[in-house]
Amino acid sequence: MAGFSDPIVAAGVAGLPALYAAGASPVDVTEAYLARIERLNPAINAVVELDAAGARAEARASARRWTAGQPLSPIDGAPIAVKANIAVEGLAHTAGIKAYARNIAPADAACVARLRAAGAVILGTLNMHEAALGATNDNAFLGRCENPHRAGFTPGGSSGGSAAAVAAGLCAAALGTDTMGSVRLPSSYCGVVGYKPALGAIPTDGVTALSWTLDHVGVHARSVEDAALVAQACGVANTAAPDQRALAVLDLDGLATLEPAVAEGFARTLDGMTAAGWRLERVRIDDLDLGALRRAGLLISEVEGGNEHRRALALDPEGFTRELRSLLAWGARQTPAKLAEAYRLIDETKRKIHASTNTYAGFLTPTTPQQAFAFGAAVPAGQADLTALGNVLGAPAFALPSGEADGLPLSLQVIGMTDGPTQALAKRLSETLSPPTVPEAFR
Amino acid sequence: MAGFSDPIVAAGVAGLPALYAAGASPVDVTEAYLARIERLNPAINAVVELDAAGARAEARASARRWTAGQPLSPIDGAPIAVKANIAVEGLAHTAGIKAYARNIAPADAACVARLRAAGAVILGTLNMHEAALGATNDNAFLGRCENPHRAGFTPGGSSGGSAAAVAAGLCAAALGTDTMGSVRLPSSYCGVVGYKPALGAIPTDGVTALSWTLDHVGVHARSVEDAALVAQACGVANTAAPDQRALAVLDLDGLATLEPAVAEGFARTLDGMTAAGWRLERVRIDDLDLGALRRAGLLISEVEGGNEHRRALALDPEGFTRELRSLLAWGARQTPAKLAEAYRLIDETKRKIHASTNTYAGFLTPTTPQQAFAFGAAVPAGQADLTALGNVLGAPAFALPSGEADGLPLSLQVIGMTDGPTQALAKRLSETLSPPTVPEAFR
Repeated sequence: MAGFSDPIVAAGVAGLPALYAAGASPVDVTEAYLARIERLNPAINAVVELDAAGARAEARASARRWTAGQPLSPIDGAPIAVKANIAVEGLAHTAGIKAYARNIAPADAACVARLRAAGAVILGTLNMHEAALGATNDNAFLGRCENPHRAGFTPGGSSGGSAAAVAAGLCAAALGTDTMGSVRLPSSYCGVVGYKPALGAIPTDGVTALSWTLDHVGVHARSVEDAALVAQACGVANTAAPDQRALAVLDLDGLATLEPAVAEGFARTLDGMTAAGWRLERVRIDDLDLGALRRAGLLISEVEGGNEHRRALALDPEGFTRELRSLLAWGARQTPAKLAEAYRLIDETKRKIHASTNTYAGFLTPTTPQQAFAFGAAVPAGQADLTALGNVLGAPAFALPSGEADGLPLSLQVIGMTDGPTQALAKRLSETLSPPTVPEAFR
Repeated sequence: MAGFSDPIVAAGVAGLPALYAAGASPVDVTEAYLARIERLNPAINAVVELDAAGARAEARASARRWTAGQPLSPIDGAPIAVKANIAVEGLAHTAGIKAYARNIAPADAACVARLRAAGAVILGTLNMHEAALGATNDNAFLGRCENPHRAGFTPGGSSGGSAAAVAAGLCAAALGTDTMGSVRLPSSYCGVVGYKPALGAIPTDGVTALSWTLDHVGVHARSVEDAALVAQACGVANTAAPDQRALAVLDLDGLATLEPAVAEGFARTLDGMTAAGWRLERVRIDDLDLGALRRAGLLISEVEGGNEHRRALALDPEGFTRELRSLLAWGARQTPAKLAEAYRLIDETKRKIHASTNTYAGFLTPTTPQQAFAFGAAVPAGQADLTALGNVLGAPAFALPSGEADGLPLSLQVIGMTDGPTQALAKRLSETLSPPTVPEAFR
C-alpha cells in the first residue's frame, strides 16, 4: 500500500481497527472515500452509482459499535463497493446492460447482505464489461472505465470498475465476479489483489448470471489480508492448516504465448521465490488445449447467458449492444451436440489438471499473458486463458501484484486446492513479491 | 442365497475361498457355471457371448495360484460376466446395438482389466437394452432377456442381462452400467443386489458411453459382501469408518406414485428396521420435480449418446432400431438453451438433495416405484425416477432385495455419501432384510 498519502486509504481493510484505536472513526473513513470518489472518479469512471446517504448512515452505526467495543466483525465500517451485476437494494442492478437501466434491486444479493451483516459500509456499484462477457470494460452504456495506471488503457474486465476503484483508492475493497477470469484479469491489469474463492464459496444469489456453471463471486483488494477478510465476511472458510508441499509451475510451452515483459517478469518472480526458499517444480499437463477450453467456456457462457437474458432480449433488443446480441445469438445457433462437448471438455480438463497438480500446495502461472493495453488495440484472444483454469477447476485462485514493467503492473496467479490454505499461501507469497503499485495520479 | 442347491452357486463370490479350503477348485467352479449357462440360459437369454475357452484357461491359472497359496485377491477364480457395452478383448462390443455386431473389442475395458488382474474368470458378455437407453431389455438385435422370476416378464434394464444372470445363478457376479438406474432397476426387478459406486469410482474407459455426465459402472451380485468384493477389485474404496448417524427416509408424497405392493413392502421394511433399532427420520426435499429431472437426464443422454454414436449412425442407420434413432434425433433437434437448462437442473438438484441429506448416513427409497411387469405392458414413465437420484448426486447407491410381493421381488434403495461407509451400511441393512429370492426354476 506504500504510496497512498492518506493513512485511511493506506490502511486498506485490515489496518482500519488500528486507526479507530488511535481515535479515527468509521465516519471519517467513509467521508474520506466519498471525497476521493468525488475528486478522482471522473478521471476513471469506476464508480457508476453512489449511495452516499446510505453509506453515511452505515458509517455512523458502525462508529457507535466500535465506540461500544462491539464491532460485528473485523471489517465493520470498511467501505466496500460492488460490481454492477451484484444487487444492492435500491440501486440499479444493470450488469452493465442498458436494457436493465431501470431495474432497481428490491433486495441485496446474498454476498452484499453478508457484508452488511458484518458491518461493512456499501458505497455503491462499479463499472463492468457489458453482461460480464468481455474483458475491456469499454462499456457503451456506463461509459468506458479507464485504467488508473494509464489514461486510455483498459483496466481489463469484466470487473474492470472493481479493480480500478481499488487501485485508485476509491474504496477499501470491492466485490467482482469471475466466470473465466473476470476478477483476476482486471486485478492483473490494475495491479491489485484479486481473489476468486472456490466455486460456490460465496453464493451467487442476487448476482446476474453469465454462466451458472462457471460464475464465481470474488474480491478485489490492496492486500491478501484485506481480500481474505472480505471473503471471510462473505462466508468463505479461513481455517488454514499450513500446506508445506511444493508449488507447481505450470509448463506453458506451446500452450500460451506470453508477452516478453510478462515472460521476463514471471521468470524474475520465480527466481526470487527460489532464492527465498520456495520449492518449485515445473509440471506439464499433457493434451491441454487452452484455445479449445476458451471456446468451450465462451459457448457455455453464451448459451447460459442467453438463458439469463432471454426475456430482456425479447422485450428490448436495442437495450443490448450489437456485439453482445451477436455473441448470444451465435450461442443459440449451435447444436446441442456441440454444447454437450463443451461441458465435457470442461469436466475432463478439470480432472486432468487436478490429477497433475493435486500433490502440490497449488500451482503458478502469470495471471494474464499480457499487460493492460490501449483501448482500440486488438483484444488478445488468449486474454483469459490462464485465469479460466481456476474456473474450470472451481478452485480458489489469487492474482497477486508482482512488480511492473514499462510502468504497468505485472501479476502472478496462484491456484490452490481449498480456500483457507490458499489464503495462507497467497499471504506468504505476497510477502516475497513487490507490493501493489499505486498509480501516480491517485497517491 | 438360500435356495441354490449347488453349493458352488450358493457360495457366491465371498464363499468361494472356503470351498477351495474344503478341496474344491476354481476349475470346478467355472465348470459349474458353464454347465448352468448351457442348461439354463436358453430360458432367459441373459448371456449373449460366452468365452468358455478363455474362462477355462483363467480358471486353471487361478487354481494354480490357490494351490500355491498365492491368490491375487479374494475374488481370484470367481466367474464374472459383463454387460455387452463393456469391452472384453476378443468379444463383440455391441452395447446391444446391431450396428456394432462386428465390433470386436481390441482390448479389455479398464474395469475388466482390473477384474482379470484380481484373478477373476471372465465368462462373457450379457444382454442389455439397446444402447443402455431404456429399461425393458426387449432387444431386437440380441433377443429379449427374460426375468428369471417369471417368463414373459421384463428383467428391467438397461443391465437386464446382468441382473438376470446373477438372479439365475449363471455367474457369481456381473458388471453393469448405470446412467439413471440401469444397475439398480433390473436388480430390483430380479431380486439381486445392485451396487452403483460413486461417480468415477470405477473408470468408464472401454465402456460405450450413454452419457459421460451420468454414466457409472456398477456391480450385480447375490449379496452385499459379494458386490463390495467385486467393486473393490475394480478399484472402489473399502475403507469403512462406521457411520453411526440416522438414516433419512425420503418423503415421496406428491413426488412419485408407488404401486400399492411397493408402498406396502416399503412400509413393512421401515417398520422392521425401526423394530431392529435403526434411527429413521422422514426428510422432505422442497421443490424436487422428479419428472423434470427425468426429462433432463433423458435429454442429456440423448445428446451425449448421439455424440457417442454419431459415426455409426451416419454409416449404418439401419443398425439402430427406429425407436433409438428417434430418441437420438429428438435430442439433436433441441436448442442448446434447453440442454443448458437440463445440465443446470441436474446440478441444482444435486446441491439441493445434498443439503437436505448430508447430515445422515444415507437415505432410503424403494428402488423402483413398481415391480417387474410383462413385456408388452405399458412402460411406467417414472420407472427410474428414484434410482436417477443416485446418478444426479454421483453418490454410491445400493439396491437391496427386500422380500417379495405376488411372487416378484421388492427392493430397497439406500443412497450413501462415500463408498466405504455405504458398503458397510448396506451390509448391516441387508442383515435385517429378507435375503434375495432365488427364482424357482433356477434353484
